[in-house]
Amino acid sequence: MMIQLDFEKSGGLIPVIAQDIQTGEVLMLAYMNQAAFDQTLKTKKATYYSRSRKKLWTKGETSGHVQHVKEIRVDCDLDTLVIKVEQAGGAACHKGYKSCFFRMVTDNGLKIVGDPVFDPEKVYK
Amino acid sequence: MMIQLDFEKSGGLIPVIAQDIQTGEVLMLAYMNQAAFDQTLKTKKATYYSRSRKKLWTKGETSGHVQHVKEIRVDCDLDTLVIKVEQAGGAACHKGYKSCFFRMVTDNGLKIVGDPVFDPEKVYK
Repeated sequence: MMIQLDFEKSGGLIPVIAQDIQTGEVLMLAYMNQAAFDQTLKTKKATYYSRSRKKLWTKGETSGHVQHVKEIRVDCDLDTLVIKVEQAGGAACHKGYKSCFFRMVTDNGLKIVGDPVFDPEKVYK
Repeated sequence: MMIQLDFEKSGGLIPVIAQDIQTGEVLMLAYMNQAAFDQTLKTKKATYYSRSRKKLWTKGETSGHVQHVKEIRVDCDLDTLVIKVEQAGGAACHKGYKSCFFRMVTDNGLKIVGDPVFDPEKVYK
């Protein structure tokens, strides 16, 4: 069934929050256009639109760290998604951490609170 | 201490994911500019920039449903935040649900999976 999301509000892209379905940890935020959303629905693998590369990007196509989409939630304004995923390889962040949000704001600046899962130099050759 | 976020990539605004610090549930996504971020740091109450009203907006200023900010996480690109909050009133969504993401995508369209916490017509008079 067709679900009409509001892609126009932000120029064709909506923010998508990827959340670990087991732990609830927020892994990353990326963007989808209509084509990325359609491909994600069809393949059940998270596919985003890369704003820097200006093309569709299936998470894990280089690293193998695919996100298997188990549930999709839509917000009240139909312009933001939460996708609940199983994260292959245990890490979503290209810097080797489980979550991209591995740093906490403190009175003394940023403090790393996540543990590294892999070495980016070995994964992204 | 000054933390330099990348507000310029998206025209002065960064997406901010508000997450219930107890349950890990994603409550909502909104945006901050530098002034909203500074005010949030200072007051420890989530303050966003409203794209529709084009001004700062302290969550709960009308409804009383303030978000007390307990922890702030920054992503690898310094352009997205997760704020872990205690949600006053038990609901973040202006439609009366705990989370704005109260609907799930199914093969038969959107299905409501959240429980309503309050009646919007009584809160927003």
